[in-house]
Amino acid sequence: MATIAELARHVGLPFEGAGELVVHRIMGLDMAGEGDLTFVREAGHLPQALASPSQTMVAAEGLALPGKTVIRSPFPHLTIVQLTPLLHPRRSPPAGVDPRAVVGAECRIDPTAIVHPLSVVADRAEIGARTEIFPGVYIGEGACIGSDCLIHPNVTIGWGCRVGDRVIIHSSTVIGTDGFGYLQHEGRNVKIPHLGIVIIEDDVEIGGGNTIDRGTYGRTIFRQGVKTDNLVHIAHNVDVGEHTLLAGQVGIAGSTTLGRHVRMSGQSGVLDHMRIAERITIGPKSVMTRPGKAGEAYFGFPARPLRDWQRSVAHVNSLDRLIKRVNKLLGKSRSDDA
Amino acid sequence: MATIAELARHVGLPFEGAGELVVHRIMGLDMAGEGDLTFVREAGHLPQALASPSQTMVAAEGLALPGKTVIRSPFPHLTIVQLTPLLHPRRSPPAGVDPRAVVGAECRIDPTAIVHPLSVVADRAEIGARTEIFPGVYIGEGACIGSDCLIHPNVTIGWGCRVGDRVIIHSSTVIGTDGFGYLQHEGRNVKIPHLGIVIIEDDVEIGGGNTIDRGTYGRTIFRQGVKTDNLVHIAHNVDVGEHTLLAGQVGIAGSTTLGRHVRMSGQSGVLDHMRIAERITIGPKSVMTRPGKAGEAYFGFPARPLRDWQRSVAHVNSLDRLIKRVNKLLGKSRSDDA
Amino acid sequence: MATIAELARHVGLPFEGAGELVVHRIMGLDMAGEGDLTFVREAGHLPQALASPSQTMVAAEGLALPGKTVIRSPFPHLTIVQLTPLLHPRRSPPAGVDPRAVVGAECRIDPTAIVHPLSVVADRAEIGARTEIFPGVYIGEGACIGSDCLIHPNVTIGWGCRVGDRVIIHSSTVIGTDGFGYLQHEGRNVKIPHLGIVIIEDDVEIGGGNTIDRGTYGRTIFRQGVKTDNLVHIAHNVDVGEHTLLAGQVGIAGSTTLGRHVRMSGQSGVLDHMRIAERITIGPKSVMTRPGKAGEAYFGFPARPLRDWQRSVAHVNSLDRLIKRVNKLLGKSRSDDA
Repeated sequence: MATIAELARHVGLPFEGAGELVVHRIMGLDMAGEGDLTFVREAGHLPQALASPSQTMVAAEGLALPGKTVIRSPFPHLTIVQLTPLLHPRRSPPAGVDPRAVVGAECRIDPTAIVHPLSVVADRAEIGARTEIFPGVYIGEGACIGSDCLIHPNVTIGWGCRVGDRVIIHSSTVIGTDGFGYLQHEGRNVKIPHLGIVIIEDDVEIGGGNTIDRGTYGRTIFRQGVKTDNLVHIAHNVDVGEHTLLAGQVGIAGSTTLGRHVRMSGQSGVLDHMRIAERITIGPKSVMTRPGKAGEAYFGFPARPLRDWQRSVAHVNSLDRLIKRVNKLLGKSRSDDA
Repeated sequence: MATIAELARHVGLPFEGAGELVVHRIMGLDMAGEGDLTFVREAGHLPQALASPSQTMVAAEGLALPGKTVIRSPFPHLTIVQLTPLLHPRRSPPAGVDPRAVVGAECRIDPTAIVHPLSVVADRAEIGARTEIFPGVYIGEGACIGSDCLIHPNVTIGWGCRVGDRVIIHSSTVIGTDGFGYLQHEGRNVKIPHLGIVIIEDDVEIGGGNTIDRGTYGRTIFRQGVKTDNLVHIAHNVDVGEHTLLAGQVGIAGSTTLGRHVRMSGQSGVLDHMRIAERITIGPKSVMTRPGKAGEAYFGFPARPLRDWQRSVAHVNSLDRLIKRVNKLLGKSRSDDA
Repeated sequence: MATIAELARHVGLPFEGAGELVVHRIMGLDMAGEGDLTFVREAGHLPQALASPSQTMVAAEGLALPGKTVIRSPFPHLTIVQLTPLLHPRRSPPAGVDPRAVVGAECRIDPTAIVHPLSVVADRAEIGARTEIFPGVYIGEGACIGSDCLIHPNVTIGWGCRVGDRVIIHSSTVIGTDGFGYLQHEGRNVKIPHLGIVIIEDDVEIGGGNTIDRGTYGRTIFRQGVKTDNLVHIAHNVDVGEHTLLAGQVGIAGSTTLGRHVRMSGQSGVLDHMRIAERITIGPKSVMTRPGKAGEAYFGFPARPLRDWQRSVAHVNSLDRLIKRVNKLLGKSRSDDA
């Protein structure tokens, strides 16, 4: 808990009203009660804000909130995010390796790291400063995890993989599965060994239940700031560009490169060996089968520019009418002939 | 094992034939052998039932099974389900917390609960009566699990989440991942902290490999009797109505509400911020982009009423013919002009 | 590391050039450096091969590589696969059961098996020769794992399931979840107990995050040589034919049979109770709703023969033009009437 004055000072912003008011937690506007700090994103929410039992809000300059105590911010939601650690501090056990964890030979674990019980750090693996490794996590041989990471329970990080700083990985995710690569030989599928690794750069967040294949010989890479939702599948040798966003159940086939700031919607996919342009949006359930043009949106399978796809959907949904017209013309044509 | 007379008495149903016959296990009609108890769902299966080496069956009144010993039930499959625990009792270790489990501070674990080795119950978590927690499970800080639950190996339940009574959760499922929420700020994605929880009500079953995000500030909720298949993804703040069924690989985007008794087929999805009507069926691979009408079926992307979708599919598949007709008309029109 | 002469002898193939050259690792042609063994798949890669800093290659007879030391093979990639264990041997701990593993009563674990710390082998389970069980793995009661298997971290194998020889299972995969089966009774979904098992035959590889349901009464089966990619969902009672390949995020609904050598592309699916013909290819994102003809390719939903689907896609994408033509004809027809 903290006073409004303290919070405003922390983020270097002005406030109006009762700076001595104490807030205990952050809450969305629709659920905020007395003692909660909430925020107003736009003028349309003013009636709800004024009616709220919460007295303490973050809002943009110019939104009239008479009677409320308001921290004024050009980016209210961003300010709320910055205040969260103060009001909702993460509770972690003390730094160090729990004796019920299993740590291999020649590991380098920073003394400020937190290694929970029942986690495994295999031989020669490295764990950076302040990184927290939850129970059930397996860090493979020679894998390196940077500093300030959060590796949630039951994550698997395979041998040799490299994870940068400030990376969050959610539960049941696997980094470093072998890719789906087989040689066809005499009616059998012969496994191609996967000798490569996965590189996860800084400031990446990976959702739960993701599966990220290692490179065949080289690497699969998530560049800086990539974020994935849950159940995303990334095949071997894929290269995901900076700050790209992959929503739930997205799949990327092997050796494909995604540009920077791409946004893939839920359940969409990209074929293998593609080079997807930067800043592209791929619609839900859509499959990208060509590079696309930077900044454009693509929908459907095969994915087409959004407007073309919308027109096709409308056309298909009105085929009934088109067919009737043609039949009428045919009937007329026949009667003309008669 | 039990005699037919004992089993019939247990479910309060009459039987015909040799009540002293002993059965050892339950088996489907196509695989049942001597000594197996099987069941006959409909008259069409009578020839198979009469030819079966099994002598002992559950069947509806009126199905003639001369020579067989038959428990008569208005709902034969339901009766079989009710008899299963007698013939296939679950084998569990004795109640209590295995010393190789890790239990935090101030936990409340019912003395009849079974906590397997290598599971983790974090500080202040609660486990109800007769609930079984398998190895590799992680129960986060302050999470509450009700009574008579079965939490299969390698499940993760995040801090603060609440699970009701008689809930089954299959392996590798994660309850309480952070939602996929970021603020765009100066070309970067700033993580929105997720302070909410997941509420799983009574009599829910969750398949393997599911990922269920916690609410941003409030809650994601599975209401009573919801059942999910494997690899289902549920985003933050979603509300799944009573007795709704979600088949394999379904995805629900953020803040969507599903009505009661909705049925979503495999690989289907719903967009974010939708309010889906109750008793709707969503077809395989289909994406619901509007609320729909209660009780109707929707197919395709964007999903449309089943009949409309079927007609569109038929039309699209016969576009060859339509185009030929139009070309013929065009040719005729031109020759008329000539 | 090994000399070219040693490697050539190991696979019984001839070489040209400096047999005494020592190689340390295998690398793809685009990344190979000095001291790496690489391979040339086709004549088109000759310029890259000649320019490579690598001096040591596997290539087919007849590809001119002057100045390079070359092992000649009719199947260069296959030869590389066969040489991989020599240059990249798997590092495993010594055989035996780590004292920090949990082993139940009456288990049969071959003395050459490797059971890592923090894995669980439940009562009456069996582990074959040289099989390696990684941390976080749960092998259920009475389950049997064959010899020379690799069970990666955090895999769950349910009670009674049977895994053959030379099987690889990647992390977070679950074998033996209950199927998605409920009886509708008085507005509730009553769980159908799942008493069956999963059978995984020899030489199968299963990707990460797969979920494979057990049979209701009988079995779900993966026949010899099946390979699956990541996040594949297999429902109860499914039968997957020999050497069939299932790419990422494929889903197979209940009681379906897939023939031998079927290939399903990423994010595709098959409806329940189908019998899919052998050697069929199912396109990405496609849903098979009928058996199909052996050896054919099917695309779309509902899936149709590839050529038909391609023609439909082209037709739909040019509906704009068709509609214009019809409108022109209509206009003309009306003016003719006038």
